[in-house]
Amino acid sequence: MDSRGRTIVALATGLTQAAVAMVRLSGPEAWAIVRKLARLQGCYPTPRTATLMRIYGEALPGIQTQKSAVLDEAIVILYREPASYTGEDVAEIALHASPYIVRSVLELSIAYGARMAEPGEFTERAFLNGKLDLAEAEGVNDLIHARTRAQQQQAMGQLQGGLSKEVESLRDRLLHLATLLELELDFSEEDVEFANRTELLELATSIQTRCRELAATFSRGEAIRSGMPVVIVGRPNAGKSTLLNHLLGEERAIVTEIAGTTRDTIEGECVYSGLLFRFADTAGLRDTEDPVEKMGIARTLEHAKRAKLLLVLVDASSPDAERVPLELFQELDGNSRKALLLTKADRVSDSALGELRNRLAGELGSVPVLLWSSVSQGGDAELKGLLGRIATETLPEAEEVVVTNLRHYQALAESDGELTQLLAGLQSGLSQELLAFHLRRVIAHLGAITGEIGVEEILGNIFQNFCIGK
Amino acid sequence: MDSRGRTIVALATGLTQAAVAMVRLSGPEAWAIVRKLARLQGCYPTPRTATLMRIYGEALPGIQTQKSAVLDEAIVILYREPASYTGEDVAEIALHASPYIVRSVLELSIAYGARMAEPGEFTERAFLNGKLDLAEAEGVNDLIHARTRAQQQQAMGQLQGGLSKEVESLRDRLLHLATLLELELDFSEEDVEFANRTELLELATSIQTRCRELAATFSRGEAIRSGMPVVIVGRPNAGKSTLLNHLLGEERAIVTEIAGTTRDTIEGECVYSGLLFRFADTAGLRDTEDPVEKMGIARTLEHAKRAKLLLVLVDASSPDAERVPLELFQELDGNSRKALLLTKADRVSDSALGELRNRLAGELGSVPVLLWSSVSQGGDAELKGLLGRIATETLPEAEEVVVTNLRHYQALAESDGELTQLLAGLQSGLSQELLAFHLRRVIAHLGAITGEIGVEEILGNIFQNFCIGK
Repeated sequence: MDSRGRTIVALATGLTQAAVAMVRLSGPEAWAIVRKLARLQGCYPTPRTATLMRIYGEALPGIQTQKSAVLDEAIVILYREPASYTGEDVAEIALHASPYIVRSVLELSIAYGARMAEPGEFTERAFLNGKLDLAEAEGVNDLIHARTRAQQQQAMGQLQGGLSKEVESLRDRLLHLATLLELELDFSEEDVEFANRTELLELATSIQTRCRELAATFSRGEAIRSGMPVVIVGRPNAGKSTLLNHLLGEERAIVTEIAGTTRDTIEGECVYSGLLFRFADTAGLRDTEDPVEKMGIARTLEHAKRAKLLLVLVDASSPDAERVPLELFQELDGNSRKALLLTKADRVSDSALGELRNRLAGELGSVPVLLWSSVSQGGDAELKGLLGRIATETLPEAEEVVVTNLRHYQALAESDGELTQLLAGLQSGLSQELLAFHLRRVIAHLGAITGEIGVEEILGNIFQNFCIGK
Repeated sequence: MDSRGRTIVALATGLTQAAVAMVRLSGPEAWAIVRKLARLQGCYPTPRTATLMRIYGEALPGIQTQKSAVLDEAIVILYREPASYTGEDVAEIALHASPYIVRSVLELSIAYGARMAEPGEFTERAFLNGKLDLAEAEGVNDLIHARTRAQQQQAMGQLQGGLSKEVESLRDRLLHLATLLELELDFSEEDVEFANRTELLELATSIQTRCRELAATFSRGEAIRSGMPVVIVGRPNAGKSTLLNHLLGEERAIVTEIAGTTRDTIEGECVYSGLLFRFADTAGLRDTEDPVEKMGIARTLEHAKRAKLLLVLVDASSPDAERVPLELFQELDGNSRKALLLTKADRVSDSALGELRNRLAGELGSVPVLLWSSVSQGGDAELKGLLGRIATETLPEAEEVVVTNLRHYQALAESDGELTQLLAGLQSGLSQELLAFHLRRVIAHLGAITGEIGVEEILGNIFQNFCIGK
C-alpha cells in the first residue's frame, strides 16, 4: 500500500509524568484498529462522542483470562472523514499516562496495521486533504511552540488564514493583471495600448508595493518568532553583566542561560510586554595591542551588527564619561538601533549627572540617553519603558499580517524581483511571452506560500520540523 | 467557599514538547468557566461530545478586536455530574501544546474562579464522590506509573476492584462473626456455648488465614511494584561488572545507570519476562586488614541481605574455585535466595568444569550452580531461564490478588494481630466487650484499605503522591 494511504499512529501528548496520554490514529484503518484494541463487538460509537472503552493487550504467559488482558480503561473519540483534523478517519485514545500502557498501545496499533507517524504527518495530511493551506499548517507548528503572547497571536493569525488571505488577494490581482495584459495584446493594433499600459503599470506597481510591505514586516516578524536580539556593549567594567543579570532576574522563571564558546559571552532570554528579548553580554571594548584580545573585540563588533538594539553602557563615574560614548558610537557603526546607558549613576552627584546627560543627548541626537544604577535601581522604569516601546513597535497592529517565516519572506522577495522585471518589461515593450513568463513566476512564488502551486519537494522540509503526533 | 467544593483546574498531560495538551476542570463552575473561556452565547454542547471551540485570551494592549484575542482553537468535552471521572461537572480542553497557551488557559481559569488542583485531587474527588474506593484510587496512581506489564496488570487488577472484593469478603465474614458472637452471648446461659464457640473459632481462624495469605503476597507485590532486587557478589575480579553490563545490555533502551555514592556500586534496571529486575554490582569480598576496605565489605554484606536474589560469582579458572563458594556462602548468611555462577567458564576444560560443578552442586544442596562465560556467552540461556523462573513465580496467577502497597500490607498485618488476640480471647473466655473491641479494630483496619472507615487523616498522605492533574 502507498505509505501515504496507510493509517498512522503517534503519541500526541508529552512524554513526561502526567495523568493523561493521548494516542492518535489517522487513516482508513483508524476505526478498525480501535475495534481490535477495544475488542468491540457491536457498532462503533457515535463520532465525536467520548466513550469509555477497555483496551486489551496480550495477556502474560499463563494468564489467559479476559480480565488480566485489560491494558487500560480509556476514553476514545472517533472522527469520521472528512470531518476530522486530518480529513481522514481519526481515533483519539486518552490513556492513563503509563509508559508501559502507551508503548503497548503504540505497538498493538502497529501490529494491527498502522505505522508510526513521521513528524508533522497529521498536519501534512490535513494540508493534502485541503483542511489547511500550507501557511496555515505552518501556523499550527508556530502555535505549538509559542512561548509568548506575541508568538501565539502571530501564529494564531496565520493559522486562521491571515497571511493566506493577503496572498490570495495578491494572486487575484495578478490574475487580473494577466487578463489586462491579454486584452492589451488583443487590441494592440487598434491604438488603445497606452491607456491600458498605464493601468497595467499601476496595477503591477501596487502589487509590488504590497509584496514589499509584507516582506518588510519580516524583520519584526523574526523578532517576534525568534526573539528580539539585544546586545550589551561597553568598555570593561561598565556594568554589563550586572545589567544582564538584572534584566534576566525580572522573569527568571523562563530564563535560560547558555554559556557560549567564549567565556565572556552570556545569553539569556526574557519577556517584556509580550515580546521575547534575547540579551547578550559581550567582551568589553577597549584599545589593545594584544592580538588575541583584538580578535575577541572584532567578534563583539560582529555580534553587535546582528543586534536589533544595542545597549551601549558607559560608567558615569569614570573621568572620561563624556568622551567614551562618542568613541564607542564610532566603533559601533551599523544600522542597529542604539541606546546609551550611563551606569553607576549613584556614584555621581545629581547635578553633574544631569549636566553630563544633557551634553551627551545634544551630541548623540536621536539616541536616547538613560541613567541607571544597579545599587539604587534608579532609571529602571526608564529602561523598561524603552523595552516596552520597542515591544509595542514590534508587535503587530490589530489584524496586521506579519511575516515570520523565512520561506514566506523568500517567496515575497522573489516575487518582488520578478515584478521589477515585469515592470521594466512593460515599459521597454518586452514580448508577451516574456511578460507572461515573469507573471507566471510571481504567481508561482506566491502560490508556494499557501501551497496552491505544486510544492511536493518542499513539503518534507516543512513538516519534518514538526513534532511527532501533530 | 469550602476549598473542597471549589472548581479545580490542572494540566493533565505532560509538559514536554508535544502536539496536544489537555487542561482539565472539575467542580460546580467547570462549565461556566468554559463558557467564559470560549465566550459561549447559546447553550452548552451536548455532554461527552467533542466540540471545536475558540478559546479567547485577553488582547494585547492596543489590540482589542475579537480575532486578535483568540488564544487557541481547542476541542472541548463537557461531562455532567455524576457521569464523570470525579463525579462532578468536568471539562476537558485539548489545546495546541504551546507553553504560552497552556499557561494562559490555566491563568484565565483561575481568574474565572477555579483554583489549581492539588496532586491527586481529581482522583480524591472521585473517591469522595463514591466513584472509586480507596484501594481502586491507589490502583489509578500505580497504573499511571506502570513501566512493566506486571506493574500494569497488578495496578489494573486493583483499579478494577480485585483487592477491594477480597477485603469486602473478609469484612462480610467479620460481620457474620460479630452476629455469631452476639448469638453466643444471648444463649450463653442455655449451654449452647461450646458448639458456637467452635464455629466462632473456625471462622476467626479462616479469616486470619486469608489475611495472612494476602499479607504474604506483599513480598512478591513489592518486587512487582518496585522491582526485584538482585545483588551480584563475589571475590574481586570474579566478573561481576561484566555480568552486570551483559544483563543490562539486553534491554538497554530502558536501562538507567546510577553511579552510587561508593565508586564500586553500580545499579541498573531491566525487564525480563515482564518483571522489573534491579541489579546491583557490589565491592568484591575478600579477607583484608585494611579498616576502610573492611567497612566497604560490611556494607556489601548489608546490601546482600536486602536482596531477593544473590548471584554469587566465582571464577571457575581460579585455583581455589572449589573452596571459595563455600566460604562465600558462609559469609553471606541471610534468607535471600541464592544462585552460584561459575564465571570465565571458557578458560577451563569441559571435563574439569563438569566435575567442579557436580562437586559444588552436591555440597550446596538446593542452590542452583550455573556456568557462565562472557566470551562465549555460554550459560546465558540457563541464566535467563533462572530469571524467567523467578519472574513467573513472582508474577500473579490469573485473577490472583497481590498486595503491593505498604499501607495495605500494614492494615492486613494489624488485622492479623487483632485476630490473634481475638482468638486467644475466645479460647480464654474474654469478656464480650473486649472481644467486640478487637473485632471492631479488625473491621476498621480492613475498612481503611478501601476507605469505608473514616480515613480523613490518611487521605492527604495517599493523594499527595499522585501527580497534579489526576
